Amino acid sequence: MKQVILTGDRPTGRLHVGHYVGSLKERVKLQNSGKFDEIYIMIADAQALTDNAEHPEKVRQNILQVALDYLACGIDPEKATIFIQSMVPELTELSFYYMNLVTVSRVQRNPTVKAEIQQRNFEASIPVGFFCYPISQAADITAFRATAVPVGEDQMPMIEQCKEIVHKFNSVYGETLTDPKIVLPDNQACLRLPGIDGKAKMSKSLGNCIYLSDEADDIRKKVMSMFTDPNHLRVEDPGQVEGNPVFIYLDAFSRPEHFAEFLPEYQNLDELKAHYSRGGLGDVKVKKFLNNVLQAELAPIRERRKMWESRIEDVYDLLRVGSEKARETAASTLHDVRHAMKIDYFEDSNLLK
Amino acid sequence: MKQVILTGDRPTGRLHVGHYVGSLKERVKLQNSGKFDEIYIMIADAQALTDNAEHPEKVRQNILQVALDYLACGIDPEKATIFIQSMVPELTELSFYYMNLVTVSRVQRNPTVKAEIQQRNFEASIPVGFFCYPISQAADITAFRATAVPVGEDQMPMIEQCKEIVHKFNSVYGETLTDPKIVLPDNQACLRLPGIDGKAKMSKSLGNCIYLSDEADDIRKKVMSMFTDPNHLRVEDPGQVEGNPVFIYLDAFSRPEHFAEFLPEYQNLDELKAHYSRGGLGDVKVKKFLNNVLQAELAPIRERRKMWESRIEDVYDLLRVGSEKARETAASTLHDVRHAMKIDYFEDSNLLK
Repeated sequence: MKQVILTGDRPTGRLHVGHYVGSLKERVKLQNSGKFDEIYIMIADAQALTDNAEHPEKVRQNILQVALDYLACGIDPEKATIFIQSMVPELTELSFYYMNLVTVSRVQRNPTVKAEIQQRNFEASIPVGFFCYPISQAADITAFRATAVPVGEDQMPMIEQCKEIVHKFNSVYGETLTDPKIVLPDNQACLRLPGIDGKAKMSKSLGNCIYLSDEADDIRKKVMSMFTDPNHLRVEDPGQVEGNPVFIYLDAFSRPEHFAEFLPEYQNLDELKAHYSRGGLGDVKVKKFLNNVLQAELAPIRERRKMWESRIEDVYDLLRVGSEKARETAASTLHDVRHAMKIDYFEDSNLLK
Repeated sequence: MKQVILTGDRPTGRLHVGHYVGSLKERVKLQNSGKFDEIYIMIADAQALTDNAEHPEKVRQNILQVALDYLACGIDPEKATIFIQSMVPELTELSFYYMNLVTVSRVQRNPTVKAEIQQRNFEASIPVGFFCYPISQAADITAFRATAVPVGEDQMPMIEQCKEIVHKFNSVYGETLTDPKIVLPDNQACLRLPGIDGKAKMSKSLGNCIYLSDEADDIRKKVMSMFTDPNHLRVEDPGQVEGNPVFIYLDAFSRPEHFAEFLPEYQNLDELKAHYSRGGLGDVKVKKFLNNVLQAELAPIRERRKMWESRIEDVYDLLRVGSEKARETAASTLHDVRHAMKIDYFEDSNLLK
């Protein structure tokens, strides 16, 4: 069986280091593993509209930004198809038919939907489109016959929902859809980075993100202003490593060779942490190290981003061609779905008689 | 402004005299009124699948039957476009975007949805597709830029929902969609025929319908077995006219000329009713008259149906061509919708930049 990945992001802002550590890095690794025959990366504008219907410009203006971030991180358009969700209308048709196979109460019980409704303070005014997005996501996954869906643990209920739809469809209409598998990231990639202010979630509105597109100087300023252990007042005080954003970022980004290059007094992160914990290590020194580490990691990403920014017409073409290819694949699955449902009346006139 | 009608039926069974009196007769009248530039009549297979997902054959097998019933009643393919809903995938895309403009609680408050959920004993297991059908119906209506939607009074909340979506869309994305008007049938056509057993609803499973495709002999047997006033035991007893199915059918079908032809002792229905009420008029005599009336009304319909049955390939072609035409119209509206939402990225490259 062909090994196929589907993954993607809602284009509601430029991507930041949290996205990088949480999923983009892993995607590039999977892309380059040679284990997959096809990789589809979806810029989920239609899904973003389910809770941004009144601000379509916010979604539209971020499509190209997200594409640039993908390319910057090393997504290779020769190996992966980047496409825009709304350019594949076949997905809405699949959603429409899958909606008949799921009950309202089943969606209401979906923990991810519950959590996201709470996060957005929707309460009684959830848009129907947002409520139905687990079904629309099942359409996205199955349209490409994805065998592997790399997502965070919090998205597991969405994949469960998708698998239920696949099983239900196949049992009612005959074996047609491909059952996807969730691919959870390994520990390193799974790390959830807090904002630079220590808040659990990075968010544009809080202004606490380091973006992949940030200039070197912005990164330095953001790192130097990072929240650390608030009780670590003097250099000689013992400091707390757990929950300290600077050390969480170092967990995510630093490698032994960074120490050799930027901080040769320490062999590795464990030694640095031990010193911080027992006291005598100032925040400024640690932040300067983190800055060096981040600059080393993000400079090539920023360079690649600038290169693609100077070729914006190529990015536009790449999205167009990617969307066309994605549409062909989705249309072929939809053809199979309609055939299984026996609603392709005009392909076989006996169906109506 | 172009005057456009959209109307249709779920193909879950052959059509019966209830459909005829309740809507088909009115449609033919509107069709022949010369007041409308375009008339679309939709065989709503996709909508029927929302609560028949596990029995797609029930839906599929009735599509041609419903088309034959339309043609039999006098729907003229030169004046009206008969099409199959699932052959117009643009409708699912419109639904998808409209779903973002309606809240879950708004749909839950829709009285028609409430009533239909109760009728179907769905309770907790309402399919999402069925729950969302008011939104899908708004897609159907607006796709054809319908100005007039002829429906029964019970469907008013559905049209309200559609108008809300139109206003919301136009206020968020700019004036794009056409506001439809409900066309309520006049009193005569509004009549809801009970089943021949006196039950309020005609239903295939109850076996209490007179179908438009019934043979003369079947009609006669069904009429002669009709439920009447159960207290009208002897001819000389006074009988009750109100709620008496035989008289409700006469209200719907008999005209003064039928009396001249079949029952010249009476001038009109009022005289017949008066005699029945005061006693001395037997049910058999009234039923024989109703049979004559129905045979006169239904014979030409049955003849036309047989004519079309013998040209089944033409009916098939007519559905194919009608569906193609409907698809073109819907695609043109969808184009306007996508343009208004500014998601037609590849038609104007400035949108993404």
